[in-house]
Amino acid sequence: MSFIYDEAIDGLLQVVDRTELVTALRARAPELEILTEREDLRPFECDGLAAYRTMPLLVVLPSTIDEVGAVIQVAAARGVPLVTRGAGTGLSGGAMPLEKGILLVMAKFSRILSIDADAGIARVQPGVRNLAISQAAASYGLHYAPDPSSQIACTIGGNVAENAGGVHCLKYGLTVHNVLKVDILTIEGELLTLGSDALDSAGFDLLALFTGSEGMLGVIVEVAVKLLPKPSSVQVLMASFDDASKAGAAVAKIIGAGVIPGGLEMMDNLAIRAAEDFVHAGYPVDAQAILLCELDGVASDVEEDAERVASLLHEAGASELRVARDDIERHRFWAGRKNAFPAVGRISPDYYCMDGTIPRRELPRVLKEIAALSDEYELQVANVFHAGDGNMHPLILFDANRPGEMDRAEALGGRILELCVEVGGSITGEHGVGREKINQMCVQFKGEEIDYFHAIKAAFDPSGLLNPGKNIPTLARCAEFGAMHIHRGHLPFPELERF
Amino acid sequence: MSFIYDEAIDGLLQVVDRTELVTALRARAPELEILTEREDLRPFECDGLAAYRTMPLLVVLPSTIDEVGAVIQVAAARGVPLVTRGAGTGLSGGAMPLEKGILLVMAKFSRILSIDADAGIARVQPGVRNLAISQAAASYGLHYAPDPSSQIACTIGGNVAENAGGVHCLKYGLTVHNVLKVDILTIEGELLTLGSDALDSAGFDLLALFTGSEGMLGVIVEVAVKLLPKPSSVQVLMASFDDASKAGAAVAKIIGAGVIPGGLEMMDNLAIRAAEDFVHAGYPVDAQAILLCELDGVASDVEEDAERVASLLHEAGASELRVARDDIERHRFWAGRKNAFPAVGRISPDYYCMDGTIPRRELPRVLKEIAALSDEYELQVANVFHAGDGNMHPLILFDANRPGEMDRAEALGGRILELCVEVGGSITGEHGVGREKINQMCVQFKGEEIDYFHAIKAAFDPSGLLNPGKNIPTLARCAEFGAMHIHRGHLPFPELERF
Repeated sequence: MSFIYDEAIDGLLQVVDRTELVTALRARAPELEILTEREDLRPFECDGLAAYRTMPLLVVLPSTIDEVGAVIQVAAARGVPLVTRGAGTGLSGGAMPLEKGILLVMAKFSRILSIDADAGIARVQPGVRNLAISQAAASYGLHYAPDPSSQIACTIGGNVAENAGGVHCLKYGLTVHNVLKVDILTIEGELLTLGSDALDSAGFDLLALFTGSEGMLGVIVEVAVKLLPKPSSVQVLMASFDDASKAGAAVAKIIGAGVIPGGLEMMDNLAIRAAEDFVHAGYPVDAQAILLCELDGVASDVEEDAERVASLLHEAGASELRVARDDIERHRFWAGRKNAFPAVGRISPDYYCMDGTIPRRELPRVLKEIAALSDEYELQVANVFHAGDGNMHPLILFDANRPGEMDRAEALGGRILELCVEVGGSITGEHGVGREKINQMCVQFKGEEIDYFHAIKAAFDPSGLLNPGKNIPTLARCAEFGAMHIHRGHLPFPELERF
Repeated sequence: MSFIYDEAIDGLLQVVDRTELVTALRARAPELEILTEREDLRPFECDGLAAYRTMPLLVVLPSTIDEVGAVIQVAAARGVPLVTRGAGTGLSGGAMPLEKGILLVMAKFSRILSIDADAGIARVQPGVRNLAISQAAASYGLHYAPDPSSQIACTIGGNVAENAGGVHCLKYGLTVHNVLKVDILTIEGELLTLGSDALDSAGFDLLALFTGSEGMLGVIVEVAVKLLPKPSSVQVLMASFDDASKAGAAVAKIIGAGVIPGGLEMMDNLAIRAAEDFVHAGYPVDAQAILLCELDGVASDVEEDAERVASLLHEAGASELRVARDDIERHRFWAGRKNAFPAVGRISPDYYCMDGTIPRRELPRVLKEIAALSDEYELQVANVFHAGDGNMHPLILFDANRPGEMDRAEALGGRILELCVEVGGSITGEHGVGREKINQMCVQFKGEEIDYFHAIKAAFDPSGLLNPGKNIPTLARCAEFGAMHIHRGHLPFPELERF
């Protein structure tokens, strides 16, 4: 047995012969689909964070829990790392393959197992697409609330792994608030059920611990999610502002008044113009910012809330206020928001989508500081985001073909995340840490906290074979990154040049 | 250094001299209040599970985080176990002292540190009473939603430790859904902040892991909770049924129809009669069961929902339906429910309050089986519970002075919890596991799952000094208890005599 150093995971790996590995997999699981050819592996070399690419050693596509168990057993016996992947739409590189690892693709786990409409529970396989759950539940008047932008394509297994969010998470919570039960296979091949069909569960909350753990604690083989009634009435208001800070302040005002909108989204001028140019949503292209506020529930309630929100928006200095006249206009308003990312893609060769959260009251300040950072790094930044829950998505525009621009974009992104931490927020809202933000984890957490993450990781996966190199940095990495711990929301050395 | 076996924690403890311990504490924290006299310790010998009593080695009442740190340091250096306690209202013995341990009473941590009305966040010390938070937030039109029956007395620190519930948790979630951030001291004396003011946080979800961990992972020194707007309108309906199963079915019907009441409570005939006799709530004493359904929100919404619920209750076979005419009648309806426990205390020398959750659809079946078990054990059972979220509270009536009755009550309680697990539920809804249900943990979980609990415990508290003997059973205990693991909701040997 020999070992080599692997840069991606910052550790030693056993040297494994691919042919021997395939033979062992075939012996344990004769029907298992295994991909080894370069052209077959190519589609799997990255997830949604396409700037990071690695060709995996091989790809397996199991179709039964037994086959997943066989892959885990063969990998564990040989010390081969395993990266599990759903649709690969994740934006933080959580499903990025390892050159010396197996990529476990759960695409064939695509069955909806049962819908219990009375209990409001759907049992599904992890490869079921997010939107497919709501489509299957629609005939019962139910839906699955969390709605990431990628919901047409992304899978529920990936949603659980990353604790995915979406426009409606302001009112209905993140994935962790909408998952009841997860069946996992551990690295020992043991099948465990975390959570239950009932409220609460005894002992430590392993379900919440597992949600958002980015494939580092086990492999998801089944998920039970909560189904909620579809709201009978929906209304959307669009408010324009001549100053983005005013829009930020309006958000805090609406939430502070006790209204909980289904969604409360903000776009700045650059995003507005890009979206309008692309889908003709009817946006005011001269506004510095718009807010889109969706209210849902029973009709009378929605009407009452819409009136309150309208008067709050006026008070906050909205220069124009429009209420969608009908479903067509409502969908048009949303079309601009939902296509904002590709719209920005049209005006810039490349863009880098950040994801941090901040306390709502800090929105005006953070928007101003992002503008200042944008000037400093000489890169445009478009802001399109879930304002209601303080989940920022600055899009940094750059051109990868211009020398140094990609590095500058990454550096600017890092500064924005550190700004989020500085004001009391977090380096992720709904995209996870993955490979992308592993350095910023050193900013968010101190060494002792990272120690606890490692101890929990070791409790589930002592050999560290499940998705190594993601989510939790080694302390060595943090030391190298500059030990930039921010204690209690205060950067100890803000003047330091970090990149 | 010498060791002795301690039965309560099923392990070895160092022999410690109390005088030496007090001297060490005084040296580290001169101002720390320390109780050692028998009469001073007496009030602390049990929590709300008064059937279990132990006199602690000594009690400390720190008033600063430094003093808590000093207690932890002195205890850790000597291998003395630490049990942390709030108001001691818990019903599962989670704060029961250890004969050879220090009881850390957080009563002096009773300050509300800040209320940020715009952000909807209250920062409080752990010894602040649950109700005091809502009282302080009232002038802003806000409140803290989780409302355990003991909310006048119980503290937020204890609520976090036990993941407490309450009537309104059906709509607003358990403690875990309403806590944003917790500051803890680890057994190493390290101050950690779990969670943040913002949505989500990166890495593993330590905040959710910590919530409900029953003082086994660290000591809570500060809590930030979510404040919600007080609903502007509230209505209560009371429906009578001539059959408890019909009431159970009505619950599933209401929730299945997509109405989410603020609270949905059920009482059976024995509880109805006891409560009516005690507080004259206006309950129909000949009904086999009543449902109390509270609807809250904006007025128009509440009205609409009340009409829907009324027609659903009629369809479900309600024999009588009353809507509270005014606030006075509404409070009277609730007075019966809220005083049901003491009311049952008036008709029986002793009672034992159980706490398990089941999927709502199983309510009719479980109510029938509890009645059969009540006959089998020849003990009356009153049912008063959070029906909407399937959280059962059977009250087992017994007389501790009659030989064998207490043991029979405990045995019957165990059977009821096992029934909850059998139908896919959990052995706790909101009271925690504590000392009381440690054996039933062996029913709920298999050995591999309990192994993970121990591994997580070891990650935070390798020496096992924080609240040992609660929440997580040793595997030896499970083996002794009879290895009664129920796999996937099916009891492998239901015929077995267990006690």
